[in-house]
Amino acid sequence: LLAAWKHLALPCADASIILAVSGGADSTAMLLAIHELIESRRLQINPVVAHLDHSLRRESKADAIWVRKLAEKLGYQSEHKRVDVGKLAETTGDNLEQAARRARYDFLLRSAAKRTAGVILTAHTLDDQAETVLLRLLRGSGADGLAGIEPLRRASPASDILLARPLVTWARRSDTEEYCRQRKIEYRSDPMNEDEQFDRVRVRRQLIPLMESFNPKTIETLARTAELLRDELDVLNTMADLLLKKASDRVKGDTTVPALDVRVMAEAPIAVRRRALRQWISAARGDLRRCELAHIKGIEKLLSGEQGGRVAELPAGDKVMRKRSRIEFVVKKHLKSR
Amino acid sequence: LLAAWKHLALPCADASIILAVSGGADSTAMLLAIHELIESRRLQINPVVAHLDHSLRRESKADAIWVRKLAEKLGYQSEHKRVDVGKLAETTGDNLEQAARRARYDFLLRSAAKRTAGVILTAHTLDDQAETVLLRLLRGSGADGLAGIEPLRRASPASDILLARPLVTWARRSDTEEYCRQRKIEYRSDPMNEDEQFDRVRVRRQLIPLMESFNPKTIETLARTAELLRDELDVLNTMADLLLKKASDRVKGDTTVPALDVRVMAEAPIAVRRRALRQWISAARGDLRRCELAHIKGIEKLLSGEQGGRVAELPAGDKVMRKRSRIEFVVKKHLKSR
Repeated sequence: LLAAWKHLALPCADASIILAVSGGADSTAMLLAIHELIESRRLQINPVVAHLDHSLRRESKADAIWVRKLAEKLGYQSEHKRVDVGKLAETTGDNLEQAARRARYDFLLRSAAKRTAGVILTAHTLDDQAETVLLRLLRGSGADGLAGIEPLRRASPASDILLARPLVTWARRSDTEEYCRQRKIEYRSDPMNEDEQFDRVRVRRQLIPLMESFNPKTIETLARTAELLRDELDVLNTMADLLLKKASDRVKGDTTVPALDVRVMAEAPIAVRRRALRQWISAARGDLRRCELAHIKGIEKLLSGEQGGRVAELPAGDKVMRKRSRIEFVVKKHLKSR
Repeated sequence: LLAAWKHLALPCADASIILAVSGGADSTAMLLAIHELIESRRLQINPVVAHLDHSLRRESKADAIWVRKLAEKLGYQSEHKRVDVGKLAETTGDNLEQAARRARYDFLLRSAAKRTAGVILTAHTLDDQAETVLLRLLRGSGADGLAGIEPLRRASPASDILLARPLVTWARRSDTEEYCRQRKIEYRSDPMNEDEQFDRVRVRRQLIPLMESFNPKTIETLARTAELLRDELDVLNTMADLLLKKASDRVKGDTTVPALDVRVMAEAPIAVRRRALRQWISAARGDLRRCELAHIKGIEKLLSGEQGGRVAELPAGDKVMRKRSRIEFVVKKHLKSR
């Protein structure tokens, strides 16, 4: 853990750090291991345990109490919140997993802001990485999806808060279970992790075992593939950054993001242009929610000057407009505050 | 087929084209469809049917005769050869599939040279693409592997002969079977396609059906992912080309490939540098056989000037040597003729 900690350049002293702890083996092991490093003075940080009760199971209250007591026993402060994720999913139209994820990261970010913590740690493992790569492969995402869970990234493009996964490049889920057992801590089990109505559970219990009959090192192999793709994407993302800079240097706009020069964008290689357009949209809207390839292609039509008008529609009422030799981003007014 | 033909910019007239025909549904359908396009004068090409008998099954002689007769019936010339792939595999240490593939492409290239054909067509389908992507995922190849079968590529980096797969972006295997049935042609069946001792067969019969229980469009989704990765790789390959050019412009060498400037290579982003080194090795040796990440890392050590000497070993006795501010490729002498 300490090696991964240093590799990610996480703060070793004088810093509050949020630890996302569900009470499962992964996050409990992460908490215990960090505690060990603090006890042996190899880390001098102030961990704050954060637990969100998703209200999806009867036992979730007991889990929350268990996590709070464990944090107290170790001498750490904690942040707790209860959210009705079921209701949230109904309201937003997200599925349960999406709604839970959104509520969780929202809570973690608020906790970080409240505690002036610059880093949030989650306990994703190599197994989570492999499952994520396969789920994204099944859903058809490109290189970005297959690059999997990033060991370190900003919470959002504009945020100063870092999300770090110090276990994701090396620890198997079974390692975390074994670690908890050795320390005689009975971690909590989430029955939803056994419920095969969730794709992730079926990937874990059916798809990965079948793949292991081809290659016993499937988990490690998938994690390594994700790592290779991340290296490749770093290069492409840098090129996309440079393209956006080049395209926006030449023109001035009064929109939330700079207008882009049509010729510069049109001449770029397709993979770089699309990546740059996604970055541009993400910067303007805050995220890429519901933004599909079709929307990007719509903007590309504006660039090539093909028939199809001067406006490309984006989800949620946002628009991209072509004005002479540039394209401008138009955010739908009443959504600006979202 | 004609749409794919035009998209790949394959010659529509005055050209000899090698068609690789095993006698299976895929290649038989491709042959019949091309025949239809010739009959209706939408193509004015001279197809040469090429069939390699791998001697792996008792029925393989009958397959060869069947293909020869079909070609004759349609009025096309054909190229035939018989190779004992089993023995070849024993001699070279390749597995059966590798040896078969190597023998087949060798035969196709010789046929193309003999017939002065600039293009070789193979009948890979969407299903082949998906299977290839999964096999490579299982074996742990990076983006290049996952990019799958290229619809069009040079037979080798230095070759003028093109390998084209006009079915691979759109035709399902079942489409080719149905097409043969409609034309009342009883294509040949290869029992090795049902033999679950081959990973490819188990991918087809076990892994893909399980994945289809998550996403019924798994085949199309995997093929689309491969296409997205190919777009990304085009950009990276172009960058690697430019890097090699930049690094080799400055220095002169008397080796098979230009020596490379150490500083220029060391400063490049890792994914581009590794890609460039692979291209450089491939140009010097003719291929990347048995060249692993460890070999590339060995060369990178020469670049960074770390301890570990002035020489990086490559498979088969080839070497890379650092001489002052550049690295040179040294091909093992007696292998030059391979």
